Amino acid sequence: MNISVDLNADMGESFGPWKMGDDAALLKIVTSANIACGFHAGDPDVMAATMGGAIAENVGIGAHPGFADLQDFGRRRMSLPKDRLQNMIRYQTGAAIGMARGLGGHVRHFKLHGALSNMCAEDADMARVCYQAALSVDPDIIIMVQATTAQEAVVRDLGCSWAGEIFADRAYNDNGTLVDRSQPGAVIHDPDLAGQRILEMVKQSAIITESGKHIPASIDTICLHGDTPTAVAIAGAVKAKLQADGIAVAQFTGRRQG
Amino acid sequence: MNISVDLNADMGESFGPWKMGDDAALLKIVTSANIACGFHAGDPDVMAATMGGAIAENVGIGAHPGFADLQDFGRRRMSLPKDRLQNMIRYQTGAAIGMARGLGGHVRHFKLHGALSNMCAEDADMARVCYQAALSVDPDIIIMVQATTAQEAVVRDLGCSWAGEIFADRAYNDNGTLVDRSQPGAVIHDPDLAGQRILEMVKQSAIITESGKHIPASIDTICLHGDTPTAVAIAGAVKAKLQADGIAVAQFTGRRQG
Amino acid sequence: MNISVDLNADMGESFGPWKMGDDAALLKIVTSANIACGFHAGDPDVMAATMGGAIAENVGIGAHPGFADLQDFGRRRMSLPKDRLQNMIRYQTGAAIGMARGLGGHVRHFKLHGALSNMCAEDADMARVCYQAALSVDPDIIIMVQATTAQEAVVRDLGCSWAGEIFADRAYNDNGTLVDRSQPGAVIHDPDLAGQRILEMVKQSAIITESGKHIPASIDTICLHGDTPTAVAIAGAVKAKLQADGIAVAQFTGRRQG
Amino acid sequence: MNISVDLNADMGESFGPWKMGDDAALLKIVTSANIACGFHAGDPDVMAATMGGAIAENVGIGAHPGFADLQDFGRRRMSLPKDRLQNMIRYQTGAAIGMARGLGGHVRHFKLHGALSNMCAEDADMARVCYQAALSVDPDIIIMVQATTAQEAVVRDLGCSWAGEIFADRAYNDNGTLVDRSQPGAVIHDPDLAGQRILEMVKQSAIITESGKHIPASIDTICLHGDTPTAVAIAGAVKAKLQADGIAVAQFTGRRQG
Repeated sequence: MNISVDLNADMGESFGPWKMGDDAALLKIVTSANIACGFHAGDPDVMAATMGGAIAENVGIGAHPGFADLQDFGRRRMSLPKDRLQNMIRYQTGAAIGMARGLGGHVRHFKLHGALSNMCAEDADMARVCYQAALSVDPDIIIMVQATTAQEAVVRDLGCSWAGEIFADRAYNDNGTLVDRSQPGAVIHDPDLAGQRILEMVKQSAIITESGKHIPASIDTICLHGDTPTAVAIAGAVKAKLQADGIAVAQFTGRRQG
Repeated sequence: MNISVDLNADMGESFGPWKMGDDAALLKIVTSANIACGFHAGDPDVMAATMGGAIAENVGIGAHPGFADLQDFGRRRMSLPKDRLQNMIRYQTGAAIGMARGLGGHVRHFKLHGALSNMCAEDADMARVCYQAALSVDPDIIIMVQATTAQEAVVRDLGCSWAGEIFADRAYNDNGTLVDRSQPGAVIHDPDLAGQRILEMVKQSAIITESGKHIPASIDTICLHGDTPTAVAIAGAVKAKLQADGIAVAQFTGRRQG
Repeated sequence: MNISVDLNADMGESFGPWKMGDDAALLKIVTSANIACGFHAGDPDVMAATMGGAIAENVGIGAHPGFADLQDFGRRRMSLPKDRLQNMIRYQTGAAIGMARGLGGHVRHFKLHGALSNMCAEDADMARVCYQAALSVDPDIIIMVQATTAQEAVVRDLGCSWAGEIFADRAYNDNGTLVDRSQPGAVIHDPDLAGQRILEMVKQSAIITESGKHIPASIDTICLHGDTPTAVAIAGAVKAKLQADGIAVAQFTGRRQG
Repeated sequence: MNISVDLNADMGESFGPWKMGDDAALLKIVTSANIACGFHAGDPDVMAATMGGAIAENVGIGAHPGFADLQDFGRRRMSLPKDRLQNMIRYQTGAAIGMARGLGGHVRHFKLHGALSNMCAEDADMARVCYQAALSVDPDIIIMVQATTAQEAVVRDLGCSWAGEIFADRAYNDNGTLVDRSQPGAVIHDPDLAGQRILEMVKQSAIITESGKHIPASIDTICLHGDTPTAVAIAGAVKAKLQADGIAVAQFTGRRQG
């Protein structure tokens, strides 16, 4: 048996003079970087610097669009008609592709950010609009989805290339959703615990919930957070744990699976 | 002899609820549309609507980037380091390409806006940075330049595909620059006069200055302004005059000429 | 009997190079101007020009804050926590007061814009937060409310100075709400009809609904829209009709009524 | 003899999710806080939090306006006509006054930020426009000026209340200007050195240049930077050194001196 898994993190979330996250350290650990496109975070200079770093470290570049809302970092839900969703996805995806190409790299995957992602995890129609918009710009782009959610249902239906994602530092409910951040234990801060937990999920091809329930899942990539104090420690621990168990850490190739 | 010339206009300069220009009318007249990319004017929805109109009317789509300055409409000069110029050009060009592709069209040309264009007409180094940035995103993009300026010198040196532009409604000085708007006669408001004048210039392949001097010029396209009360009337008059004299109005093909 | 009524309109809704409304013409008709504060429309230069015009025409200046959303003109609903609502109201109100004072004028009233106003017409808690925020900046500011809505209930409870408003060009439902714009007859485009209708309402001190029902209302001011093609014509017709019937058009003084 | 001096720092420079500076620590040390007004940094929520902290710590609140340029943090020079400078100063000053009043505090001083301040240190006409704009909003506001520059000349001429400022961590040239940051020794990182140096300047009422020259100066306040790693250490060292030598650290009262 030959198992590998991808590690991804959100990056390029600085803006002008304001720094966020330790992108340089994370780029040494992850295999895929989801790069903010200037609407909820990032600007052309931050994007260029982050993409340049990803290219240098051989990390896969992803377009990571969000709602146009710097002050809320794309974390406030917005209700937009379908054509406007489509337009803002195309704009951000195109901008990311242009930036990457200009630097000699290319955008290989696509991942929604923040409230936009959360809404699409619940609303298949909305996810479909967003994913079709991205695919209309590049039909070969690999869509990264929150495994087992409406996002996954949509990419299976679209027949596009996709990768399933789970979270390294978040506890899951029995219905496959994330435990709300307001609950105790919702966020895992202990690197060892996070590593052990992810290793189990990858080996079992299942999300393991707080209660111990196993939900079969297509796990192609593990989301590591970049903006917490323990982010780099957790990222390193997860990677080490996987590798110690013989699981390679490598970029996903994208599955086409209905 | 078989002569044709292109007619272009800046479009997509509305923003959110604010309208600017009569794009629908101009799209019936011009052969190329320079579409604002959201930094000095336009937004993803305006871009999509304008590009959709251009596709429907078979008008060539151009990326038309400017300084990030909505309040000044990209008309205030900004001093930016080269890498930042490069990044903002790549971002806007990529966004335009993504939007067009998503709509089933494509961006065939590139034209700088406002103060960014004026600075590059005087500063070859700056023009080179901007044009190389655009070409790094799409090496086949046709660069539209102000004929006889530093912009033209740069595209000749780069060996890329380009098209030379003159202005339908602006008087020229003997050194080939535009007469300052503060001077009487700087802007031509009479459609007949504009048409006659442009016909002469196209036939002579020369800019004809206020004093009557002829400056040989590569005239591939005529810039029609879209945001003045007489814009549509002048555009129509120029087109009619050219066609009446047997000069076809058609998209430029781009010259590669050192 | 000595009756007078105020006429108000939203103004200063241009932004940078983009014009909206015919403020110069409306300032000759209205007695109160609600001036956008730069979050949903306007900018410091537009505010200064509009306030300067209001001072010259002896028109009362109002702070007219909205959601921070230029692209949607403050017309998209946003869910914000109370402290953030409070902060954005104080900021915009303070900015308006500072601008007016710098020009030798002063802000005498306060009116919410767009989605922010509509949400507060339904949600008394939200209205209370907004009005208390404005009053914390200036306890003497007169709060303009949509008559008979939750907005009015709140100002009555707060004991502050207020003025009740009805709309010149909108039809009313029997419950006092506005007929949805999607319905036929929701917006009145005929200046004569608008004038006749408003005259009746002012004389009766009641909102007269589509079905003819009379809802008693505190009518201190009539809202005229500024951004429609017939805006100036309707404004003039309403004013003429009122004056022809002996009703003076004059600034409200603000009622303090629980 | 009874000497006291004020300590000031720029604060409220976070934006949305992005943090900058350790305002909480600095508020325990300084006596005046220059609070960004949302154009180059800050937003209404950051302003409210920072002003609330200043009120709690009995620190004087200052309006600290800058150019409208978040991405460059107000550090890029902009050329604006006088009326636009005036409008943006009035807007920001009014917003700050409104926020402070809403919180039960008040804005007692005014200080220009970044490139706007540097330009006004060289250009008396521009400084005059900015200061008159602030005074037109509040004639009692105390203008904080870079001592010995054109800024000081202007406030002396205006006859307004003002306070002279020197920098705790910057070396001075013999003509009273700051040593360019590109030069060795331009920025002082050693807290002890900074403290000793400032003590001497305050005692001598003079700027002491790199070469040892004494330039007589009205020193009412010492500017401590907030956004460097050693900011809090330097601030604490300067304060301790002054107090150890019997110089009280207290808010300036503002001098009116021609």
